[in-house]
Amino acid sequence: MLRGDMVVDVTTVLDSIPAARWPLDPGDLLIANFDRLRGLIDSMALSGVPRHLADCALKSPIANPSKILGALKNYHEPADDADYPVSTLDRDGLFLKASTSVAGPSDGIELTLPGRQHDHEVELAVVIGSWCRNVSRERAMDHVIGYTVALDMTVKGTEERSLRKSPDGHTILGPWLITRDEIADPGSLGLWLQVNRQPRQRGNTRNLLNDVPRLIEYASSFFTLYPGDIILTGTPPGVGPIASGDIVDAGIGGIGSMRVEVR
Amino acid sequence: MLRGDMVVDVTTVLDSIPAARWPLDPGDLLIANFDRLRGLIDSMALSGVPRHLADCALKSPIANPSKILGALKNYHEPADDADYPVSTLDRDGLFLKASTSVAGPSDGIELTLPGRQHDHEVELAVVIGSWCRNVSRERAMDHVIGYTVALDMTVKGTEERSLRKSPDGHTILGPWLITRDEIADPGSLGLWLQVNRQPRQRGNTRNLLNDVPRLIEYASSFFTLYPGDIILTGTPPGVGPIASGDIVDAGIGGIGSMRVEVR
Repeated sequence: MLRGDMVVDVTTVLDSIPAARWPLDPGDLLIANFDRLRGLIDSMALSGVPRHLADCALKSPIANPSKILGALKNYHEPADDADYPVSTLDRDGLFLKASTSVAGPSDGIELTLPGRQHDHEVELAVVIGSWCRNVSRERAMDHVIGYTVALDMTVKGTEERSLRKSPDGHTILGPWLITRDEIADPGSLGLWLQVNRQPRQRGNTRNLLNDVPRLIEYASSFFTLYPGDIILTGTPPGVGPIASGDIVDAGIGGIGSMRVEVR
Repeated sequence: MLRGDMVVDVTTVLDSIPAARWPLDPGDLLIANFDRLRGLIDSMALSGVPRHLADCALKSPIANPSKILGALKNYHEPADDADYPVSTLDRDGLFLKASTSVAGPSDGIELTLPGRQHDHEVELAVVIGSWCRNVSRERAMDHVIGYTVALDMTVKGTEERSLRKSPDGHTILGPWLITRDEIADPGSLGLWLQVNRQPRQRGNTRNLLNDVPRLIEYASSFFTLYPGDIILTGTPPGVGPIASGDIVDAGIGGIGSMRVEVR
């Protein structure tokens, strides 16, 4: 639990989550139990001994998403011809990333496919908090538990997108989960990414072609969303390659920023 | 546990699997513990009271795969021009299906997207038994625990393949898991599918363009495979639409057959 630039260990709250047995219900156990645990987490955060954030290795705040979905072109880009660019959501839909691609900032990024170009994409990640299916855009936000920054790493090439997006560690979530109540409007968040302190990407979620409620509405029309499912909302202009030894910094206003090392 | 056309309930063996706590390791808990449980399952199957298979509702034998992968065109089809058709695996790779799309034969198939065409694809499903990464084709079979029949249901359309393959219940696995020791050669299995008792698909895995070891080698070059991960090996000719009220029968020699109702 983050308090300013200090962190309080609330790990023992996990003991209150019922142990899971085969067959498991879909969804992340922590997120599925979060409402029930919230009071305990808050009181532990007040009573616990804070440690400096700089001394902590940050893992992914979502450990076990049942699904990770990604939006394709979803930002109005300067190069767009039309004043009102048309979304391709209805034509192209969303793509899947493997749940086994999740990692945290401290894990770094391993370029696992020798000789291939790996691109960085900074995105607002929406974390689903509760079961939903065929939800309307008006009710969609009721099912959001919060947000993280995401690095949606992508291997360039001709293979299926869902494969190229899914090598181990290619979905970095962090630096932490910001709960929905702390973000007044997910439709006006600045986001940015630097490589070796050089600006690469900059954008604002006000330029999303499909906003957060619409993406949830659309995704839930195809399948059930479960607690901990992730929707990556698309990346602003400036996507480019990274190389071993690079330092990637990525952040979103109102959430925070994370540093990720490339090896 | 299947004995002839009788089934013995070995559910209590699940009590021997250690309870899982957040964060969960990737992989299906039953498959990850299968080697350790096998002796217990075998002895329970001998001592338990058998029930008629016809009185049992068959669920998916794999409940919690961390990944479901599918091969694109992977059968030599009569229409192929070349005597030696070239695989597109290196160009197109494999696609992902959502883990939340898994269901068993008794669940039936719900056509969840009104007005859309839903196609049947019968496939040999390979079930990974143990962790592997960058495994060679020579060692690939060491990581297979067994096989099932799969119905890889597909919504036709322009959206990303990983989305159209992933509605709830669109990956039917069954009728049971056949362990690897019971299939001498996964490269010579006949497979077939009927709709309302009319033949639709027929093929043999000897016509696979990429065999089971090659698919595992390829998949594990992109990411880690975990116990319970599924590789759908592609479908033979005869893919077509199904409609509400249809009865689908699908089978593979040496594994078995399953009946699935469409609603």
